Amino acid sequence: MTNEVKNKEKVVGIIGGMGPEATVDLMHRIIHLTPVTDDIDHIHVLVDNNPKIPSRIKALIEGNGEDPAPCMIKMAQGLEEQGADFLVMPCNTAHHYYSRIAEAVNVPFMNMVELTADHVKSAQPNIKKIGLLASSALQIIHLYEPWFAKHNVEVMYPAPEHQEKVMAFICSVKANKQTAEQLVDYHRAAEDLAAQGAEGLIIACTELSVVGDQLRTELPTYDASDLLAKSIVSEALPSK
Amino acid sequence: MTNEVKNKEKVVGIIGGMGPEATVDLMHRIIHLTPVTDDIDHIHVLVDNNPKIPSRIKALIEGNGEDPAPCMIKMAQGLEEQGADFLVMPCNTAHHYYSRIAEAVNVPFMNMVELTADHVKSAQPNIKKIGLLASSALQIIHLYEPWFAKHNVEVMYPAPEHQEKVMAFICSVKANKQTAEQLVDYHRAAEDLAAQGAEGLIIACTELSVVGDQLRTELPTYDASDLLAKSIVSEALPSK
Repeated sequence: MTNEVKNKEKVVGIIGGMGPEATVDLMHRIIHLTPVTDDIDHIHVLVDNNPKIPSRIKALIEGNGEDPAPCMIKMAQGLEEQGADFLVMPCNTAHHYYSRIAEAVNVPFMNMVELTADHVKSAQPNIKKIGLLASSALQIIHLYEPWFAKHNVEVMYPAPEHQEKVMAFICSVKANKQTAEQLVDYHRAAEDLAAQGAEGLIIACTELSVVGDQLRTELPTYDASDLLAKSIVSEALPSK
Repeated sequence: MTNEVKNKEKVVGIIGGMGPEATVDLMHRIIHLTPVTDDIDHIHVLVDNNPKIPSRIKALIEGNGEDPAPCMIKMAQGLEEQGADFLVMPCNTAHHYYSRIAEAVNVPFMNMVELTADHVKSAQPNIKKIGLLASSALQIIHLYEPWFAKHNVEVMYPAPEHQEKVMAFICSVKANKQTAEQLVDYHRAAEDLAAQGAEGLIIACTELSVVGDQLRTELPTYDASDLLAKSIVSEALPSK
């Protein structure tokens, strides 16, 4: 890469809509992380906020849903065609299809799971056990396990009775109908992970990131969506 | 239009970035105005959130800036190509270029200024004077005047000393640096319009819409951005 290309500000392409609020939340984070004095200093972002992508939950958990990858690939290619210099996808579960999407485009595709695992390891070099607050789908597809395995970190989940409630909370956030009681359930799931020996927690669901600052825990907490936003800003802005 | 086409949910294209926060604010409003139980019920939105559009203020107020229309036209055409069924633009000032953009695309382009004027007239059929809280550019380009003239409504602006402060407030919101003092200035501009005889107020700047719920006034208030969001949801969802 020449210096000229390296120092050009990049256009971000967001494969969004999983859910749409999580995409808006990421856009908001990008705006607030970018140092600006006027509009023009902000980063150019192309977004396909498409809530019609076939359900990842139906395909991965219920096992009876349409394959969502072709739709995501079409979105990724559309964003590339529109001028995106690199792609991102604010949905943890959807990263199950990361490789298929990455192979279908000619621009780099930032991996939120990889960058989160790498960040946790660099922030806590001696960590052995990490807890995930996430959709139940992640447990089935073992999304974070390979990335943490290379750092010798074990991935843990809340006990089933807590995990069920985390999943219900995620569905409520998607429908914008979360209750105070569900927030308590969410805190209990975090406590359960701490009791199991987790030394840190990852908010590994972009719907949970939307309500992220409401989580109370004494463990170091890593919000995958926030780490993604930071990486986007750092990648998009020209190197100093 | 056949019933089949009429009853298909439509994809929205947002010509955004003026500023980027105003675009995110509109997306947020669309999400919260859409009745949903899961992701799939939300509206598919394509967004070009492009803060690199040449400055409308420089072109219209300072008179020495690059013409921003070609950039906006390119964005509009890109969104159409991506599959947008109709276009919207969450920036009042940019509506100065409305006709040039509308002529360059083959899909309908919703006019925020027209729909706001029509809404005010239908909400207050006997209104004679409407006050604008907006960028100073609007006063120069007479953006709202033709649309209100057909309803026999006079458009009013805050006195110059107040208008200057509204403009400074808008610039601060763009830089996310607004102060409590500036919010007071903003309220005083609203009071000035009331003293001049305005019977209603339009928040006619998407940056002011971002902080819209903070405006204190006894006059009926119409937020152009919110009216746009309501029209988008109503246009995008299939008719019952």
